[in-house]
Amino acid sequence: MAPKYKLTYFNGLGVAESLRFLLTYMGEDFQDIRVDPADWQNKKSSTPFGKLPYLEVDGKILTQSIAIARYLGKKAKLDGKDDWENVQIDIIADTIVDLRLHTPKIYFEPDEDLKKTKMETYINETIPFYFEKFDALVKENGGYLASKKLSWVDIFFAAMSEFLAGFCKVPDVTANFPNLHALAEKVFNLPQIKKWRASRPQTIY
Amino acid sequence: MAPKYKLTYFNGLGVAESLRFLLTYMGEDFQDIRVDPADWQNKKSSTPFGKLPYLEVDGKILTQSIAIARYLGKKAKLDGKDDWENVQIDIIADTIVDLRLHTPKIYFEPDEDLKKTKMETYINETIPFYFEKFDALVKENGGYLASKKLSWVDIFFAAMSEFLAGFCKVPDVTANFPNLHALAEKVFNLPQIKKWRASRPQTIY
Repeated sequence: MAPKYKLTYFNGLGVAESLRFLLTYMGEDFQDIRVDPADWQNKKSSTPFGKLPYLEVDGKILTQSIAIARYLGKKAKLDGKDDWENVQIDIIADTIVDLRLHTPKIYFEPDEDLKKTKMETYINETIPFYFEKFDALVKENGGYLASKKLSWVDIFFAAMSEFLAGFCKVPDVTANFPNLHALAEKVFNLPQIKKWRASRPQTIY
Repeated sequence: MAPKYKLTYFNGLGVAESLRFLLTYMGEDFQDIRVDPADWQNKKSSTPFGKLPYLEVDGKILTQSIAIARYLGKKAKLDGKDDWENVQIDIIADTIVDLRLHTPKIYFEPDEDLKKTKMETYINETIPFYFEKFDALVKENGGYLASKKLSWVDIFFAAMSEFLAGFCKVPDVTANFPNLHALAEKVFNLPQIKKWRASRPQTIY
């Protein structure tokens, strides 16, 4: 029998949409639980480390979105063909995390002027710094980030690009990076993910 | 021929000492390059994503300390026996990263009073929150964090506990957590690591 998956997160794309993409890609009929922020303080202490998302697999709990993405990626045969390809995948995943880790520093900045400046720097400097390098990698790797075929980090990237577009309030965060843009579109056009994006609950970034 | 390893970082334990431990454990005679902070701004742009550490393996560059630790851990046969054990290892590694990510927020706090308060909260609340959970895991797992045998995340934890002790200026950050303390000691007493710690260059945290 196929394992039963239950994913718990907020009603956001954030760091969980990549997991929803992966579960969808795998053809898994998962429970997609979205915690109301008003209930979160009560529920927080019942989670393993006080954080979301977590994934229940046959009742056993996994935390840490990247660890879960790697685990699901392996199940979906979206891992690398050897240790060297896997470390390339892992490097890009953690580098995307580095880029994302700027977002709470902007979101929670209490000074409105400083917040605006930080956001501008993020959009005009930080994201392009990483995306130029990612774009070159995709060009080198025949249309994918880390190996010459689709891997879980491509799916993670595409989901994260949707989150970043919402966070930065820009229509398309990959617009100036043709190879990256084509990669995100390729992921969004995978039949399962296309169907998911067309039918998923209305989700904030 | 064994691969040639060259590790580049600052003269700190930080996020690279676990890699030095792993290379030592593997019996690799690696080049241990330590960049002078005064030279860093000149060298920064020549690194893949403007960050240290990176590891050269036969001239090819790997970045991201956790990705490198996982890669070396696999080579050292310090990975899990199956996907389920590997995801447990990965979860603990990224949870230790969550704990470490508080440190720059304290280190770079410009207000001295606030810095002191943040450090106290870190020592008296944040670290114990995580360490209590880790301690229980080690107890459950027969003396190891994530599987019932030594894995790369145990070595990563031990190295990180040395860094945290230096950062927090406490003699032993695991002192109140007997299972974690015993695990760190077990790692420090592995013959190769014992020899490394006794003979390594004088290193700041």
